[in-house]
Amino acid sequence: MRTLFNEELQQVADDLVTLASAVNVAVQNAGKALFDCDIEIAQSVIDNDKKIDSLEHSINNHCVTLLAKQSPVATDLRIVVSAMSVASLLERMGDLARHIAEIARTTFPDSPLAPQVEEVFHKMQSFTQETTEKLVRILGDQDEKAAQDLIIRDDEMDKLFESVYTIARSDEWNATTEQTIDTVLLSRYYERIGDHSVSIARRMVYTVSGFDPSKDPTHFIGVDKDGD
Amino acid sequence: MRTLFNEELQQVADDLVTLASAVNVAVQNAGKALFDCDIEIAQSVIDNDKKIDSLEHSINNHCVTLLAKQSPVATDLRIVVSAMSVASLLERMGDLARHIAEIARTTFPDSPLAPQVEEVFHKMQSFTQETTEKLVRILGDQDEKAAQDLIIRDDEMDKLFESVYTIARSDEWNATTEQTIDTVLLSRYYERIGDHSVSIARRMVYTVSGFDPSKDPTHFIGVDKDGD
Repeated sequence: MRTLFNEELQQVADDLVTLASAVNVAVQNAGKALFDCDIEIAQSVIDNDKKIDSLEHSINNHCVTLLAKQSPVATDLRIVVSAMSVASLLERMGDLARHIAEIARTTFPDSPLAPQVEEVFHKMQSFTQETTEKLVRILGDQDEKAAQDLIIRDDEMDKLFESVYTIARSDEWNATTEQTIDTVLLSRYYERIGDHSVSIARRMVYTVSGFDPSKDPTHFIGVDKDGD
Repeated sequence: MRTLFNEELQQVADDLVTLASAVNVAVQNAGKALFDCDIEIAQSVIDNDKKIDSLEHSINNHCVTLLAKQSPVATDLRIVVSAMSVASLLERMGDLARHIAEIARTTFPDSPLAPQVEEVFHKMQSFTQETTEKLVRILGDQDEKAAQDLIIRDDEMDKLFESVYTIARSDEWNATTEQTIDTVLLSRYYERIGDHSVSIARRMVYTVSGFDPSKDPTHFIGVDKDGD
């Protein structure tokens, strides 16, 4: 019974890594769609989101079955409950990558970005991509240190997002209303991908060590740092 | 044992209603803060969000304890897993109400809204408020019909949100960049409150009847229709 449970738990863990990898690809391709104005890649991100949804659905079902059949307690229970939460967060990150691709598709063949914010969006893309790559490794290796690093770098991310608004609010901002709308939405989507990554890293630390790195339990258990 | 479990489950259900009521108040007050430019009410929404976070935290802990101690199966398990998901969605709705209040606080004593979108935002507020009021009743009475109604009216909500963008993209739009930024963010926050309400209604229908009203299971289990 125990061996079976461990095998099933390993399957859930493997599926989470598969899901995180799919989200990582979606984020990378959303960036390509946005910066290269590539409508085919944009469409592939949009189409592939269904697979991400379906994988999350399957992980969730698997976890509920595990709860029903194996009645785990203590650490095992914590792992299963966390897996459901992480899967749900990854699914939302996939949706956000899809939203970025949808905006790129809408403005094609033009870029939705005003030239003034292109550089900061490139930085946001690099940062976000690096983060989702890390998530794949964190989930695969249960690397608590990498998770802690990701949590610590949260402020760095927030500053990047803030700088978009600073540029858009400055007197030098001369973008069209259309560009302003897309800039705000895109910035929000990147910000939320970052927030969800941090929430996953927090979950991960909690699952491995039982320690809540945010110190404030409501911050952690609520999963969503910033709320959306 | 069974009686104890039922009592504990009832406590979780009662706590969910308390949480939904707190979110309903937060949404109502966020509207007052926004339309009346009332900084004290804005501050109260921001301050009270901690209570919402803490209540969600407590419901989640209670559910994990229930899973560990009672090992529920079938419908009981479905109820506990759904309760965790609903609590998490309500917590995010509270965060979004807080974001609305934060924008109102930032622009005080002025309104963040351009006069051109005031009417549609009033409609969005009424609709959202009506929805969160319904959620309290749906969770309290397990009213499946009311939940179905809320799901059906989803399109109506989406049209309202779309109309904001139509106005902002029109040639008549003469708002400042600041107002455009706040309009987009506020619209997104309202949209997400609406999305989460629909997700909760779907969860509710699933829990009561086992039937997934979205027909597409990935839509339902993923909880988040639109992704953020």
